[in-house]
Amino acid sequence: MNDFRSDNTHGASAEILEAMARINSGTFTSYGQDPLTARVRDRLRGIFETDCEVLPVLTGTAGNALSVAALTPPWGGVFCHEDAHIHRDEMGAPEFFSGGAKLFPIAGANGKLDRDSLATAIDKIANEGRTATPACVSLTQATEAGTMYSVDELRVLCDVAHQRGCRVHMDGARFANAVVASGASPADLTWRAGVDVLVLGATKNGALAAEMIVMFDKSLAAEMNTRWHRGGHRASKMRFLSAQFDAYLSDDLWLRNARRANEMAARLAAGMTEVLQPVDANVVFARLGPDVLARLRARGFLFYDWPLFGDGAVRFVCGFTTTEAEVDALLGALQSGR
Amino acid sequence: MNDFRSDNTHGASAEILEAMARINSGTFTSYGQDPLTARVRDRLRGIFETDCEVLPVLTGTAGNALSVAALTPPWGGVFCHEDAHIHRDEMGAPEFFSGGAKLFPIAGANGKLDRDSLATAIDKIANEGRTATPACVSLTQATEAGTMYSVDELRVLCDVAHQRGCRVHMDGARFANAVVASGASPADLTWRAGVDVLVLGATKNGALAAEMIVMFDKSLAAEMNTRWHRGGHRASKMRFLSAQFDAYLSDDLWLRNARRANEMAARLAAGMTEVLQPVDANVVFARLGPDVLARLRARGFLFYDWPLFGDGAVRFVCGFTTTEAEVDALLGALQSGR
Amino acid sequence: MNDFRSDNTHGASAEILEAMARINSGTFTSYGQDPLTARVRDRLRGIFETDCEVLPVLTGTAGNALSVAALTPPWGGVFCHEDAHIHRDEMGAPEFFSGGAKLFPIAGANGKLDRDSLATAIDKIANEGRTATPACVSLTQATEAGTMYSVDELRVLCDVAHQRGCRVHMDGARFANAVVASGASPADLTWRAGVDVLVLGATKNGALAAEMIVMFDKSLAAEMNTRWHRGGHRASKMRFLSAQFDAYLSDDLWLRNARRANEMAARLAAGMTEVLQPVDANVVFARLGPDVLARLRARGFLFYDWPLFGDGAVRFVCGFTTTEAEVDALLGALQSGR
Amino acid sequence: MNDFRSDNTHGASAEILEAMARINSGTFTSYGQDPLTARVRDRLRGIFETDCEVLPVLTGTAGNALSVAALTPPWGGVFCHEDAHIHRDEMGAPEFFSGGAKLFPIAGANGKLDRDSLATAIDKIANEGRTATPACVSLTQATEAGTMYSVDELRVLCDVAHQRGCRVHMDGARFANAVVASGASPADLTWRAGVDVLVLGATKNGALAAEMIVMFDKSLAAEMNTRWHRGGHRASKMRFLSAQFDAYLSDDLWLRNARRANEMAARLAAGMTEVLQPVDANVVFARLGPDVLARLRARGFLFYDWPLFGDGAVRFVCGFTTTEAEVDALLGALQSGR
Repeated sequence: MNDFRSDNTHGASAEILEAMARINSGTFTSYGQDPLTARVRDRLRGIFETDCEVLPVLTGTAGNALSVAALTPPWGGVFCHEDAHIHRDEMGAPEFFSGGAKLFPIAGANGKLDRDSLATAIDKIANEGRTATPACVSLTQATEAGTMYSVDELRVLCDVAHQRGCRVHMDGARFANAVVASGASPADLTWRAGVDVLVLGATKNGALAAEMIVMFDKSLAAEMNTRWHRGGHRASKMRFLSAQFDAYLSDDLWLRNARRANEMAARLAAGMTEVLQPVDANVVFARLGPDVLARLRARGFLFYDWPLFGDGAVRFVCGFTTTEAEVDALLGALQSGR
Repeated sequence: MNDFRSDNTHGASAEILEAMARINSGTFTSYGQDPLTARVRDRLRGIFETDCEVLPVLTGTAGNALSVAALTPPWGGVFCHEDAHIHRDEMGAPEFFSGGAKLFPIAGANGKLDRDSLATAIDKIANEGRTATPACVSLTQATEAGTMYSVDELRVLCDVAHQRGCRVHMDGARFANAVVASGASPADLTWRAGVDVLVLGATKNGALAAEMIVMFDKSLAAEMNTRWHRGGHRASKMRFLSAQFDAYLSDDLWLRNARRANEMAARLAAGMTEVLQPVDANVVFARLGPDVLARLRARGFLFYDWPLFGDGAVRFVCGFTTTEAEVDALLGALQSGR
Repeated sequence: MNDFRSDNTHGASAEILEAMARINSGTFTSYGQDPLTARVRDRLRGIFETDCEVLPVLTGTAGNALSVAALTPPWGGVFCHEDAHIHRDEMGAPEFFSGGAKLFPIAGANGKLDRDSLATAIDKIANEGRTATPACVSLTQATEAGTMYSVDELRVLCDVAHQRGCRVHMDGARFANAVVASGASPADLTWRAGVDVLVLGATKNGALAAEMIVMFDKSLAAEMNTRWHRGGHRASKMRFLSAQFDAYLSDDLWLRNARRANEMAARLAAGMTEVLQPVDANVVFARLGPDVLARLRARGFLFYDWPLFGDGAVRFVCGFTTTEAEVDALLGALQSGR
Repeated sequence: MNDFRSDNTHGASAEILEAMARINSGTFTSYGQDPLTARVRDRLRGIFETDCEVLPVLTGTAGNALSVAALTPPWGGVFCHEDAHIHRDEMGAPEFFSGGAKLFPIAGANGKLDRDSLATAIDKIANEGRTATPACVSLTQATEAGTMYSVDELRVLCDVAHQRGCRVHMDGARFANAVVASGASPADLTWRAGVDVLVLGATKNGALAAEMIVMFDKSLAAEMNTRWHRGGHRASKMRFLSAQFDAYLSDDLWLRNARRANEMAARLAAGMTEVLQPVDANVVFARLGPDVLARLRARGFLFYDWPLFGDGAVRFVCGFTTTEAEVDALLGALQSGR
């Protein structure tokens, strides 16, 4: 297919579609009061080694906006990387769901926040006292730049946040890729480091439309449930959402899919010299000349320009269905013109 | 199964699940720029006999709230039946999406608004000028009470609305049931009568999670698209949503499913004497004694109490998988105790 | 002047204007960090016999909307009389400030809520669980109908509210009139009865533009301060607002003004037979024939039709500058045509 | 008094207090339907040489937030200087009133936006298409840094905005200071340059609490009126607000007050070597050593540290009551330690 545009252009894992078909017959209590939904909750509690509360949604934007809103009053300040999806790509969803919070985008190398710039940004707003009330730090793991925070980095950033009265949201659209890449446990990458709410992505990694809000602070559950209902994110035939997660979390499917995507990205990066950022997960950024780009496109390769990273920057995303042959074909096309 | 609780307790039509599996292989442009989504749009334009704009969402609440918000400024008044889903069941979704609009619930027999009470309600608010700006009338078709507006009734109500500067939203969670029951064309039941935006339900009638915002006023499309994005309702792997609609609208599946549900409700109503409202669609309300209710429940029949309609009121919903045997079993259990 | 339209058509008490002139010279710390503002706070703590927090605003709508918002989450239900100013006259201010709360207007004789209808309304919404979360009861004292709650009535209604998890807001645009009319202490009429936040009016009763949010629940103060700032209600030259209150609360000016207005209304009501509601405060509602109304208007009397109370209903408001001669002239004009 | 903290620590002009006292007797139609309010509107139309619509508010934050909200949809982008009051000092008021718009703060020398950085910022958001819809450019005149845009600079910035589909708001808290300093006409400084809405300040320049929203685009008036009502900014006894403006705009009081303040700032700046920014209006920023600051404070001079402009930066504001003697005393204290 030669499609490196996004994880979203891929379909769904066969296991997931099969699980949806399997759960189809008979009637079930709607809105999540069914045994399958309970089983998914138990699976997540096992994977995260803690008694968390969970709530499924159908898009990552919904999960992020609901979570940020639950952590932030309408006059709150949300601190995030300047390339964070919640700031750049959600058309103001966090502002809408929170009732008018302010996002404070912060620059940082490799798509990552660093301790000092985060602390400085929060302190400045706190000291002025007339702009917003610092309330939330949002981290993306793996980041929008295809990089990853280590467990230690997460711990430091969460400490910076908590010491300043902020709670921590993690956008985990590619959380599985970070688990695989880091070798760390889901617990170490989240609540043990200080994350209060994770949005665990599945859509980009083999599901159809399924993200899970994982609340390590269980006191958020009642309010989140109301926000979810009121936001139009409460699916009636929940069985079909739960079936996606049940298969996704079974037999390490989520990790297997992420591993495949990561490996393909690593293979691609290893064959190129023009890579712009460390490739920790499944996304490769590179700077290529106009003739190279034209040649790749002429041969049918699909990928997006990435002007945020400068002229000539492009993004290649590997998904759970990307094959070695596709990667090698891309590398071949790259090299053929040299 | 003996489950008469809700259309939402049923699963999905096999044709729909198969369409989703069929569309799975290969990559597709995400967010709706794919050929299947275009085909669904064309199907809808054919069915509604007009060049409408459409946007899919995953829940009815999302569709309703987005539509009402697109028709109503933050200071607008929304006029609806007092039992309307948007007022009673959506935890303030229209208020949230509109930025604080006011809903004015209006009483009306059989779950329906009538011309005079609607006109009076709007005029009162317009004349006072300090409560809200009348902006939107919301009709449910088929209604929450299992009844239906005729084409003539719709035309009259839409005229009342438009003459007073209000636009018309139709909650069509059970629109297919109304099409089948009325024998009228989708166009006659909507834009030809004066409806500006329809939310066409599929979830209750055989889809997994799929509702379609149908904008007969095409000028709403750009704003709706932004609201949809910002509301977290923009599914990335749109193919799976479009596949549901493609199958739903093919070979009259949507009408066949609705017809089955309507017929089962009619069969049930015909066998009972305690029916509370005309049974136009797939829902039967009845008032039964406590001993009868206890007996039905003892025999495993599932259904909800409906205290809105008075003591002893209950609701039986037939779905697209309800069988004659199930209806007859329920009727048998009802009669056995007489 | 023969003007019975509203308390708002009257000017300001001389004592208040003089206090503003007196405080003019020199510089003062802005935004309320001045000694006069502190003195007003102390005066209010004395009058209410408790250690309340206070925050001045410039309009009653601002005070009400900020207070309701502080007591109500965006998904909250607010229960009030159907003629409450917050519902009928504020163009959705409570919905706006709260981020989309729902108001539930309740009918009640003489502009007052009664225990049973309030309890029933709250319980219905609580039991359904899908409409809103009951959060706030709003009472107006004196009411929009010119009547008054007794201390016992207030206690009962506040108990109904608190037992159901609701907090109580009091719209006190005419609170001084109620104090005078009831003979009860400000404390008994508010926090001792269970009121959580009072908006104490001054504008209608001799100030220029000054209302005070009185928080008996001091934990509301920090959030209220932020909402106030963000709502654009934080006056920089606070001295001029505090001066109004300082004079208003000195030498019983607030009670003297209210007593005068109440007495004039009582005198007017005593001379008429067509009075529609008990006249507890400074407002008289009456039903008069079209010829009588025409005659009054021809003679230059100013007053508003009040169609809410039926055909021919009118409202006469007495203010702190209304004279006996004006009342007698109105009574004379009424009787002259009999 | 030796108070250089803010224009807000000064009182009010005698002419304004006298006008308020003069208008006190008798009754007036409330909410602005009085002849004095009409006269103020006419005065403003004369001063601005155009048939504008006007609406008074009691704080600058209210005026700014209402204006920005009227120019910006909930998903709109608002482009302003990074030190703009609407971004730094209003606790999210524009976000609240707009329903969640995003502000994009832009760096710029001397508190001013420049053409290229404004164009680049808008184009970036427009091109991405997933962050916000560019809707509004907000300029402050005179700026928060005590500088001023020339008529030519304003024209260029307004063109940049309009060419990109943005409308222009001007925060004119110190507009009178800019008129005096520039010698340009109010019309040239606003609508002729392309400004759509001006918030004309009076509070900082001799009024008690009075700002005027001046809509050069008259089509905004109806919506603004509703937002104003709903925001709790509709003063009932409007006469007292209009009296402030009537006096303020009579006999050039507004320009005389501003001239005095500007002259005092110029005198102060002329006597110092440590001035940080051009002093166009009534505000002087300087960088002083810790010993100098300590000495000034020991001698009773009041002024604020201004850490935004670096370590040791302070702000001196001259108001309409600042005297030459006060300025000279400050200069004397500065020099005494050299």
